Amino acid sequence: MTGQHTRVEDFRATGERLRNWGRWGAEDERGTANLITPQALVAAAGLVRKGAVFDLGIPFDRDGPQPGTHRINPIHLMSETGDQQLFPGGFRYADDYIFMPLQCASQWDSLAHVYYDDQMYNGFPARDVSVKGAARCAIDKQAKGIAGRGVLLDVAALHGVDWLPAGTVITPDDLDEAARRQGGVGVGPGDILLFRTGWRRKFLTERDPAAFMAGEPGLGQDCCAWLRERDVAAVCSDNWAIEVLPGENPDVFLNVHMILLRDMGVPLGEMLDFEELAADCAHDGVWDFLFVAPPLKISRAVASPINPLAIK
Amino acid sequence: MTGQHTRVEDFRATGERLRNWGRWGAEDERGTANLITPQALVAAAGLVRKGAVFDLGIPFDRDGPQPGTHRINPIHLMSETGDQQLFPGGFRYADDYIFMPLQCASQWDSLAHVYYDDQMYNGFPARDVSVKGAARCAIDKQAKGIAGRGVLLDVAALHGVDWLPAGTVITPDDLDEAARRQGGVGVGPGDILLFRTGWRRKFLTERDPAAFMAGEPGLGQDCCAWLRERDVAAVCSDNWAIEVLPGENPDVFLNVHMILLRDMGVPLGEMLDFEELAADCAHDGVWDFLFVAPPLKISRAVASPINPLAIK
Amino acid sequence: MTGQHTRVEDFRATGERLRNWGRWGAEDERGTANLITPQALVAAAGLVRKGAVFDLGIPFDRDGPQPGTHRINPIHLMSETGDQQLFPGGFRYADDYIFMPLQCASQWDSLAHVYYDDQMYNGFPARDVSVKGAARCAIDKQAKGIAGRGVLLDVAALHGVDWLPAGTVITPDDLDEAARRQGGVGVGPGDILLFRTGWRRKFLTERDPAAFMAGEPGLGQDCCAWLRERDVAAVCSDNWAIEVLPGENPDVFLNVHMILLRDMGVPLGEMLDFEELAADCAHDGVWDFLFVAPPLKISRAVASPINPLAIK
Amino acid sequence: MTGQHTRVEDFRATGERLRNWGRWGAEDERGTANLITPQALVAAAGLVRKGAVFDLGIPFDRDGPQPGTHRINPIHLMSETGDQQLFPGGFRYADDYIFMPLQCASQWDSLAHVYYDDQMYNGFPARDVSVKGAARCAIDKQAKGIAGRGVLLDVAALHGVDWLPAGTVITPDDLDEAARRQGGVGVGPGDILLFRTGWRRKFLTERDPAAFMAGEPGLGQDCCAWLRERDVAAVCSDNWAIEVLPGENPDVFLNVHMILLRDMGVPLGEMLDFEELAADCAHDGVWDFLFVAPPLKISRAVASPINPLAIK
Repeated sequence: MTGQHTRVEDFRATGERLRNWGRWGAEDERGTANLITPQALVAAAGLVRKGAVFDLGIPFDRDGPQPGTHRINPIHLMSETGDQQLFPGGFRYADDYIFMPLQCASQWDSLAHVYYDDQMYNGFPARDVSVKGAARCAIDKQAKGIAGRGVLLDVAALHGVDWLPAGTVITPDDLDEAARRQGGVGVGPGDILLFRTGWRRKFLTERDPAAFMAGEPGLGQDCCAWLRERDVAAVCSDNWAIEVLPGENPDVFLNVHMILLRDMGVPLGEMLDFEELAADCAHDGVWDFLFVAPPLKISRAVASPINPLAIK
Repeated sequence: MTGQHTRVEDFRATGERLRNWGRWGAEDERGTANLITPQALVAAAGLVRKGAVFDLGIPFDRDGPQPGTHRINPIHLMSETGDQQLFPGGFRYADDYIFMPLQCASQWDSLAHVYYDDQMYNGFPARDVSVKGAARCAIDKQAKGIAGRGVLLDVAALHGVDWLPAGTVITPDDLDEAARRQGGVGVGPGDILLFRTGWRRKFLTERDPAAFMAGEPGLGQDCCAWLRERDVAAVCSDNWAIEVLPGENPDVFLNVHMILLRDMGVPLGEMLDFEELAADCAHDGVWDFLFVAPPLKISRAVASPINPLAIK
Repeated sequence: MTGQHTRVEDFRATGERLRNWGRWGAEDERGTANLITPQALVAAAGLVRKGAVFDLGIPFDRDGPQPGTHRINPIHLMSETGDQQLFPGGFRYADDYIFMPLQCASQWDSLAHVYYDDQMYNGFPARDVSVKGAARCAIDKQAKGIAGRGVLLDVAALHGVDWLPAGTVITPDDLDEAARRQGGVGVGPGDILLFRTGWRRKFLTERDPAAFMAGEPGLGQDCCAWLRERDVAAVCSDNWAIEVLPGENPDVFLNVHMILLRDMGVPLGEMLDFEELAADCAHDGVWDFLFVAPPLKISRAVASPINPLAIK
Repeated sequence: MTGQHTRVEDFRATGERLRNWGRWGAEDERGTANLITPQALVAAAGLVRKGAVFDLGIPFDRDGPQPGTHRINPIHLMSETGDQQLFPGGFRYADDYIFMPLQCASQWDSLAHVYYDDQMYNGFPARDVSVKGAARCAIDKQAKGIAGRGVLLDVAALHGVDWLPAGTVITPDDLDEAARRQGGVGVGPGDILLFRTGWRRKFLTERDPAAFMAGEPGLGQDCCAWLRERDVAAVCSDNWAIEVLPGENPDVFLNVHMILLRDMGVPLGEMLDFEELAADCAHDGVWDFLFVAPPLKISRAVASPINPLAIK
């Protein structure tokens, strides 16, 4: 957590250097999720040692983090409660509907979520995302996962704060030091990185959607290379956009999104809750676990609501 | 798969005999999901031997199984495609919304989904399910699961058919014989039972929502005792209501739902796709696996869309 | 606009005194809309003298007056834009969806919108409004209207302000004085009263949904008798709840709603925009006009979005 | 209703000949609605002679004409019923939501609804209709209307049938003969033409959405010139697409839509119910009336649900 860079490398140059296009074939739509090999998954299952489950999704309801200016919180409505029903034998049932942005709460970004220069991940043309949804890289292409070894790095704890302030750039050094502080837990090929900024705790403390969304601590652009070197399969956080906001460079918006999703093909899991998990990891000193986060198979969608499980 | 019973025991009598109310305390809202102990979960993780993932959810889209007369298929709409956007640096993003009944496709029924005689599971009053949702037994009470050992019983394969006809009563003998045919795979305390009727294959073959919903093969009422004796934690199927329809007794509608959800407290997972999993199990002779199906934490909801994973 | 009353008559006593139950038969669901006779409607059409139309609805979009804490602004989404279409001959079409609370912007309250003591208008039981909608007094019962003679009383102009402050009690004297100031325009049987508080101008000036909804100037309880004496058919305003908020009596919430809708059966039109109309009326000195505001025939709904027209 | 043409003029040639682009200025977005002059509106109000109102909208509910394969019927859901509420003084309220395609039932097509050759009405570029809605010609541009003189021509009655069969081409001769049969009622500049095919009666008789949508009787392409010669301001019908389907020319889809909306700029009102109105007109021999159909002011929308009123 060094001071904010006044300037970082042009994101296009970084993106081009770290790009994974073609690595899993010209038709690939899963990106770094491919890095989770069967062997890695078997090894990840071996991390289940005490049978404890941590649900990392946040509640989907009207009290969520959306201020309503851009996305809204989910609207849940009952269509049946059993009232006014007359079925043989006394059966009564309740039924419900939901209306929501797919990115209103805990969610996977698909690789079709962002693009620049008219191309998305793997060079697919941007026109493949139209009013009819994503013809390429939709979230249902990740239907079998993301499941593998998860590693939590608690950057807020590293700095001894409840939460890092908005605008805090998390650097590769922060990630390395957090791992060191946590007994030298390693992050390697096919792992899912979860980094904790405390931003969820801030929301739970303040219950202020506008403050939650106004900015956030998050990854600086230099972390992209760090993730590429380790061949991380997916990245998750307790903030809402993975990366630091306002960003490091006023001339570009969401540069880390562009590099990770579009160039590297890294699925991003946002707005998760690591509070209970982080406490448990701090207590038993074990920071890795089986991580299972299946997206809903929403055809042509650019995201999916999720409730990831960490199982230790 | 004996002939349809002309009459089964009054469901209230069966329900009373098999009832789990109070078993996990007067405030319990999770029912038989409590049967998945930490030890059982550790053992289930040990079933991950080859690192193969099977996604059991069906697609959420306009081509789903809802004919629209009762529930509708999901409506997925784009709010952003990158078109008409001007962000610094060239960033463009896509965003989307969904509107759907929570039970339109693959889904968990929460224990608040059905009731009779003014009481739901554990004796909670029916008025706890109101226009404002379920104050008790909502689906988010199952936030940490259902995760445990899954066992697939392929009843359609037992009878050598692509799918069992609508109205076929699956009996305890069918379940026992299917297990015997599958090398004697056991079903015990805390397991999640998946039984295959072929009803999903029927839909994939015919693409006829009205035919899919007109009836179905499924559990007869006698299977409730079979499940109770084994202390099964949850039941999933490839049909849309677990139980046989039309039911065994014309005087009562959805009796198996009432006994399983309301009396026994068994979460039900419906409209799953076991085609790929069943083929793999038939091939390697291994019918049990780690099953992970986290519901979305939709506050006060009586159901959640899901995409369960079976991991072998 | 005298100072706020410290106490007004118990609303139940007022409601009982002014009640219209049974006046149009035991099955009536239209209330004072019945007061618009064919003769009154013919006379109202005669007010169209210069062929000028004033649209009194406000825009339905994301920039509306809902802060999102209770109701939300409408969400409008495109399902087709012509993109990715291939029809014979070159035809392309656009299509769209809306999701909204029926009371998010300009709207009629049906007589089923509020109730107390387990009865709604005309004594219908409150249980007739259930999760399945309103079996009685739904908005489609007003399908043929409200159409008749409209009269605008500009209370803000009477007091020489852009808008009256929140909490300002509008009294019968205010209404009488406004009419006197406007050339003695009369309000009589079957008329639709439109009163202007300036609250819409406040919103257009400030664009602050939270401030718009925090309170409002509006009718005090004494105006109910004034409306009953004149047999007004419907009441419309540019605020969001017709009545003053906070209310005159801290022990009761929305007393004017209860008396007007439930006891008197007066349809209420809220969140209208009288700015252009008021300017025109001030200019030509003509304050009455043909008013036409058909609700959408949404079955069993308790409200309908509208765009009322005033035609002079 | 002569036999179906085997071939009609190329729609582009017809469109070019009848085009109204530039007629009301280069920025015009209202098309032929401009033809309703203040004088015409005053005259139309003069048609209100007996004070009878006819509501021409159809119900918005689950039993509507949408089979669900393309558009769906509206979904109306309650968010409040008064249950579980505790307000001071006993106040209780009901509230509701709607989710619907804007063209699911009675509706205005805006001039942005269809286009060809990359241009919509008045030459605006097709790209002005994007995922963010219609930047040009949205339905709220018609906020002040459509209100004027309506004339009903009952083509089904002309041919002595309950309804014309699907595929029946309505010709200019049909329109002329219908007018002659109805006492020589004239259709002139600024009038709103309502033509009755009986298609609504078919739906009310059969309640079969698929049959309703499978095709329809409607205007043949030659009627476009007839409408242009008379300078009709808007066209409404009881079918769902104004024009005959299947169309006159298998090589082109919805040619009448393209000419009327895109070239001539004529707002189209579809899926109306003329049953009660037609019976009244047949009874009193008066076929013209004040017609008032304000769209909801949905920003950037390409259509609006409506409930038009005919007032005699």
